[in-house]
Amino acid sequence: MNREVIKKRIKAIRRELNSRKINCLIVTKPANVTYTTGFLGDDSWVLITRGGVYLLTDSRYTEQAQSECPRCTIIERTNSLAEAVAKLVKKLKSVSASGGVTVEKSTSLADFGELRKHVKARLKSVANIIETIRSNKDGSEITAIKDAASIAAQALKRTLRYIKPATTESELAGMLDFQIRKLGATNSFPTIVAFGPNASRPHHQPSRKKLKQKDTVLIDFGAKYKGYCSDITRCFVVGRPTAFYQKVYDVVEQAQAAAIKMIKAGVKITHVDAAAREVIDKNDLPVYGHGTGHGLGLEIHESPFLKADSKGKLKAGQVITIEPGLYMPGKLGVRIEDDVLVTETGCRILTRNCPHSPLLS
Amino acid sequence: MNREVIKKRIKAIRRELNSRKINCLIVTKPANVTYTTGFLGDDSWVLITRGGVYLLTDSRYTEQAQSECPRCTIIERTNSLAEAVAKLVKKLKSVSASGGVTVEKSTSLADFGELRKHVKARLKSVANIIETIRSNKDGSEITAIKDAASIAAQALKRTLRYIKPATTESELAGMLDFQIRKLGATNSFPTIVAFGPNASRPHHQPSRKKLKQKDTVLIDFGAKYKGYCSDITRCFVVGRPTAFYQKVYDVVEQAQAAAIKMIKAGVKITHVDAAAREVIDKNDLPVYGHGTGHGLGLEIHESPFLKADSKGKLKAGQVITIEPGLYMPGKLGVRIEDDVLVTETGCRILTRNCPHSPLLS
Repeated sequence: MNREVIKKRIKAIRRELNSRKINCLIVTKPANVTYTTGFLGDDSWVLITRGGVYLLTDSRYTEQAQSECPRCTIIERTNSLAEAVAKLVKKLKSVSASGGVTVEKSTSLADFGELRKHVKARLKSVANIIETIRSNKDGSEITAIKDAASIAAQALKRTLRYIKPATTESELAGMLDFQIRKLGATNSFPTIVAFGPNASRPHHQPSRKKLKQKDTVLIDFGAKYKGYCSDITRCFVVGRPTAFYQKVYDVVEQAQAAAIKMIKAGVKITHVDAAAREVIDKNDLPVYGHGTGHGLGLEIHESPFLKADSKGKLKAGQVITIEPGLYMPGKLGVRIEDDVLVTETGCRILTRNCPHSPLLS
Repeated sequence: MNREVIKKRIKAIRRELNSRKINCLIVTKPANVTYTTGFLGDDSWVLITRGGVYLLTDSRYTEQAQSECPRCTIIERTNSLAEAVAKLVKKLKSVSASGGVTVEKSTSLADFGELRKHVKARLKSVANIIETIRSNKDGSEITAIKDAASIAAQALKRTLRYIKPATTESELAGMLDFQIRKLGATNSFPTIVAFGPNASRPHHQPSRKKLKQKDTVLIDFGAKYKGYCSDITRCFVVGRPTAFYQKVYDVVEQAQAAAIKMIKAGVKITHVDAAAREVIDKNDLPVYGHGTGHGLGLEIHESPFLKADSKGKLKAGQVITIEPGLYMPGKLGVRIEDDVLVTETGCRILTRNCPHSPLLS
């Protein structure tokens, strides 16, 4: 990870910590650990003080951390994370003197209890400091998400010819994942492939169900590259779509277009959400129960969340999905999802080059 | 999920809750949600009272929950999980009357705060109730892990012929994952493939590094089937191993055998851990810093954990990994990992049919 990028991030975090009079933040959420250090491993916490950034990791990761983290002090712990924090806090006189240590609210009650047991300082907790900073992507992050989206698009292109009768959902998911791996990335989340009515379950698990002539296919997947996620959903038809499926598809596509048209820095999130739902409602079709989209980056689901009751406005630099869907249990499911960068004047679709037509030939 | 299996589990949990005078447990950990209901989706919590088991899910999962969960009341929430819990607790007179609601300690501070805000009852927390019950596997779980291990072994067998010069780490990982998918399973965790010295990083991320003649290959992977994980590590050599690599490999194999020989219900966990480390130490080679193994089941890492400072003894019905390793940064890494069922009289290796020889031909 680039030294200057990390330096800027730490500066932004320290500014926020100062304004809240926080002297020492214990970062426990994996994505926040990556954001503040560049470290891509697990089971490690970061401690940010006014003077230093410390990564507490273990022997499985020391060598990796040394090459990934240019700007932090790497501490190889041999005891529990809470004990390692306690030892470090004791050593850092400025922290012990200030008396307070603040923990991310995403920390579990169990870990907080362990910290309380070992750390000789007053413990507080705080929510969403790094998450809020992370929701405005810097240049290196936008590049990584764009690369992740390109890899996903290319992988799907290479997989299209395997969408043919007798292929199973599981096999098709596997082929897509293989293409993602061949392109040097991993999955953002377990790939969803749903044939026919299975697509009415938004989070269907691929089964050994075989594709039939005239079947429909829903694929929801993403590539993760250099730690960053993309997230795409596409629907296809083997042969000709029925008139009803085509109608539903067109309505979902219009709903997505209506939402995307609304996107611009300063626009209320609920307005974007409502734009998509209105199109479906006006066509007398059932409005989806899930959100219209979500931020994505180091996490597959992160701030902002686009829901009917969301607060706040879109900001330039946010990367969000727009994914309206239409579900009829036992009948069909259609969802179309793209990744969009919010700009001052509108937006840029990062998944434009991903195959879009539901017709395979 | 089988009704009778779930019934037995709920009975065991209620017995434990009764003994601790807990009237109502809020289950938030995904693996515990699956264990108590059969539900395989996300973003859902379970509430267990003396009289009922309630799954709080959302519209994305309602259809799935109806087919997966035979014995619980499915509640489709439209608001946050904490608000849904509050609404239900209010409705359940016996819970409101008893005055107390207990939450799993794996819950985040943020979620606990939300519950505190909405639920009109005293909130307490408790650790490891379901985790402890889960560490002793029932018959259906052992079958599922065995199936997951068989799929993993079969997938690796089918992948061996792709271990040849010019293949990249990432491609090989992708091919293995594809075979797992073809067999109807998913990954227990992102597959690790490390060529040559990359294997000295126990959690190396597969890169686009190409395999060379005489290179070594470490593969750490697992198949997840019906929610249950397997976890296997194997090392291979392209061509003939060097004398030093062969020596290291033999020592790790002996270390693993020494630990497996110790396994039996009632044996101290530290004794198993020490048995493996001793073999490596006696050979004047560097002793690994990670644990010797861990329980596995619905989670890839679960109780019991086999470390130098572990407490307690092995119990019949536990399924654990045994995975000593040997790491020399810049030089090599070797780890051998199998999944083992602890029995009253010893153990049964569940990954016996997975290719074992480091020689490919």
